[in-house]
Amino acid sequence: MVLEKLISNAYAESLKNMRFGDKSEELSEIQSIILNSKRIVVATNNEKKFKVVFDIISKVCNAEVLMLGISTNSADLTRMPALSKGLIAVDSTDADVVISRGRLGIPGSGSLLLIMDKKGRILTGAMSSSSLIHKNRIEDSINLELTIALERIGILVKK
Amino acid sequence: MVLEKLISNAYAESLKNMRFGDKSEELSEIQSIILNSKRIVVATNNEKKFKVVFDIISKVCNAEVLMLGISTNSADLTRMPALSKGLIAVDSTDADVVISRGRLGIPGSGSLLLIMDKKGRILTGAMSSSSLIHKNRIEDSINLELTIALERIGILVKK
Ligand SMILES: Cc1c(O)nc(CC(=O)O)c(C)c1O
Ligand SMILES: Cc1c(O)nc(CC(=O)O)c(C)c1O
Repeated sequence: MVLEKLISNAYAESLKNMRFGDKSEELSEIQSIILNSKRIVVATNNEKKFKVVFDIISKVCNAEVLMLGISTNSADLTRMPALSKGLIAVDSTDADVVISRGRLGIPGSGSLLLIMDKKGRILTGAMSSSSLIHKNRIEDSINLELTIALERIGILVKK
Repeated sequence: MVLEKLISNAYAESLKNMRFGDKSEELSEIQSIILNSKRIVVATNNEKKFKVVFDIISKVCNAEVLMLGISTNSADLTRMPALSKGLIAVDSTDADVVISRGRLGIPGSGSLLLIMDKKGRILTGAMSSSSLIHKNRIEDSINLELTIALERIGILVKK
């Protein structure tokens, strides 16, 4: 079934008070959007952060994986920087999947990684603690976040 | 420092390309907003889900903890249901802190718990896998999400 039809059915269930959580056909559809993606844009212009995402996503997808050419600093002045960065990539490229990573909310709120589709709909994501709490290298945080974001919708990443 | 000043300073750092992650005074401020909160609204009208949140949050705060009186089903027809539920509570109550929990994004995308302040600014949050992947009881998922949401900004919950 196309994604729009699955979403339309889920919305109808919610309106009828008959929605009881995610369904397996929804999960399969999210998996296939990511796994069959042809062009993935990573919403960063930082080479180091790009490389971590590139290495992991290349293990599960055959897509062309590109870095966003423009600065996403302005997103840090919004309510949800990670979301705003992703939407900058959705709106300014022809990616079919976008991966973004940045602050969750206000300064101090730690990080969020999101995977969204070509319309900016959120497919999956993952968070880390504030960097002041975990003290890990940023590469290790991004690696873990992306792995968890894929695993939580059933895509396993080989070590 | 008041939160608005901390945010204003962080935004100025981002504009100057001089922002390098969360700062300890930001974390302390987020902690004190939650710990000193007088009225917390849980954005659900489900008694079972409310009780899990009530029991955990009561271990760390002295606040009055209330359930939202109205249905939040309509939020499931939005891009970020958990966020939309939280904003329903922010806009329709005089809570100083709101806790919401629902779907992260599209149907199939698993769950998100958010803690926001009286203006709807996001203080912290946590995610679970899609319920089809983890198969845990909903009470256990909410318990874990809220515990992680607090721990990731440095508030430890006693077992
Ligand atoms: C309405 C709804 C939904 O469709 N899916 C989820 C995620 C899940 O099942 O893991 C949630 C939390 C929810 O509130
Ligand atoms: C600009 C910015 C910021 O201020 N804080 C964070 C979270 C953290 O430090 O854990 C991130 C990911 C970020 O991109």
